[in-house]
Amino acid sequence: MTDTLVSSDRKEVVIGFDRPFCVIGERINPTGRKLLMEEMKNGDFSRVEADAVAQVQAGAHMLDVNAGIPLADEPAILAETIKLVQSLVDVPLSIDSSIVAALESGLSVYKGKALVNSVTAEEERLEMVLPLVKKYGAAVVAISNDETGISEDPDVRFAVAKKIVERAADFGIPASDIVVDPLVMPVGAVNKAGASVFRLIRRLHDELKVNTTCGASNISFGLPNRHGMNAAFLSMAIGAGMTSAIMNPLHDEEMTGIRGADVMMGHDPDCMRWIRKYREPSAVDAGGEASRRDREGRRRRRA
Amino acid sequence: MTDTLVSSDRKEVVIGFDRPFCVIGERINPTGRKLLMEEMKNGDFSRVEADAVAQVQAGAHMLDVNAGIPLADEPAILAETIKLVQSLVDVPLSIDSSIVAALESGLSVYKGKALVNSVTAEEERLEMVLPLVKKYGAAVVAISNDETGISEDPDVRFAVAKKIVERAADFGIPASDIVVDPLVMPVGAVNKAGASVFRLIRRLHDELKVNTTCGASNISFGLPNRHGMNAAFLSMAIGAGMTSAIMNPLHDEEMTGIRGADVMMGHDPDCMRWIRKYREPSAVDAGGEASRRDREGRRRRRA
Repeated sequence: MTDTLVSSDRKEVVIGFDRPFCVIGERINPTGRKLLMEEMKNGDFSRVEADAVAQVQAGAHMLDVNAGIPLADEPAILAETIKLVQSLVDVPLSIDSSIVAALESGLSVYKGKALVNSVTAEEERLEMVLPLVKKYGAAVVAISNDETGISEDPDVRFAVAKKIVERAADFGIPASDIVVDPLVMPVGAVNKAGASVFRLIRRLHDELKVNTTCGASNISFGLPNRHGMNAAFLSMAIGAGMTSAIMNPLHDEEMTGIRGADVMMGHDPDCMRWIRKYREPSAVDAGGEASRRDREGRRRRRA
Repeated sequence: MTDTLVSSDRKEVVIGFDRPFCVIGERINPTGRKLLMEEMKNGDFSRVEADAVAQVQAGAHMLDVNAGIPLADEPAILAETIKLVQSLVDVPLSIDSSIVAALESGLSVYKGKALVNSVTAEEERLEMVLPLVKKYGAAVVAISNDETGISEDPDVRFAVAKKIVERAADFGIPASDIVVDPLVMPVGAVNKAGASVFRLIRRLHDELKVNTTCGASNISFGLPNRHGMNAAFLSMAIGAGMTSAIMNPLHDEEMTGIRGADVMMGHDPDCMRWIRKYREPSAVDAGGEASRRDREGRRRRRA
């Protein structure tokens, strides 16, 4: 029954065992987005603004904000981005950096209780990040790797996550403020990645009783029909007990997989959110087929 | 590690814990298909032929064959339909009737080891169907309800399934020849239907160690976007240990959910089936988006 509360100055969101799945929008991140990187470096935040609004409109409950730009003043840019995003949307943010000074800079301007993304079990990271999390009363994503890297053995990764939870307790941070990322490997490279991460998620849920998150699209890296695979992964991960993911909320297939899983878990009372989202007068009986046929028919007639 | 082997005269199929999910095509069934019912009654089997071929082409591993036509000679029509279908496709069949004489008539003409659909825990059904299953060396779908109806309590349904397995053993039918249908209720009517059937599937898998099947589309009865919900349900049910379903294989969303779940379970070595199915030169990186945009672009340009 673990609840992790995060907030902005206007809104609280709870990541929890008996809650709808928490979608953390991943788009505000210049990694691999050359254009966004150039713009952010040059003080142009128009794309950040558009991404913030679009992701919340698409159903993101939180947004991840990353300003990882090589050779730039990341602490300053991250703080500026956070202030901007908080002025535009009311959802809580995940403050995402591998640079501790940037995390602190972001936390210092953030209004509400943030999610810090992230700490690993590496000794140096634990000693630097956990005091910050405590100082600002934040929650934190705990990634289950340490100095030895990422183990393929889910039991080792469980032990690593447990170590972070224990060390956090030493700093006065409760387990309910830790969201474990069990690390999703690409199933195209590691064939057992799906099955083994589900086992790990279940143990984290049942034994360590912590909330969980992941970079969901990792699972399909290098494979065709990534959205179809991500959707199956997300539904199954929710079935195994995963409670949030850092992902792109603009993709319908993934969001449908999540909304369906929320219904299956009993986290969408009377299916009201599902019905509100998908009800169309002509599509109630045919799962959208009727209206799709209508649109295609009209398109053909126009052609 | 339970394997349920079924066969035609030309092909063996194994429903099993460590196997790809078994899709049993549901289309050859006049229930609710008025036109098909009229045609079958009048000896016109053209639609049966088309349905048989289309379902196998779409990826069905088995076909369910039902000839439930009120006031017609169901035993004769079922036997005729089975002979026809076996002449057209090589997949094993599930012989589906609530009339014991029709089951026997179907079994008597069937070539191979059929799946009998179905027996319940009602005393009369057990006494009539199980001897037939034994006589013809078939496998059987066991539906977890009895004289008292369908319990909403998954523990009661587990006990009912267990009773059928035990009674079958008395007739010399091994548990590996029993595929339990835990009964999927519409989640629009019973909000906990998803969560409770997953728990039941997991118990049937872990404790009773039997294969499982279900009428998958029941879950979304009465709700919009049925295909999206069915897909989420199927992925999650496979994650919980379900090994087959009686369903419509002509719907892409459901089939993608199943193929994705097979990958996640490690039942698609090196993702070869996934890659073969979805690889398009222009779609490898974008999950089909690129090619979809291409097609739509062409359509607009033509218009």
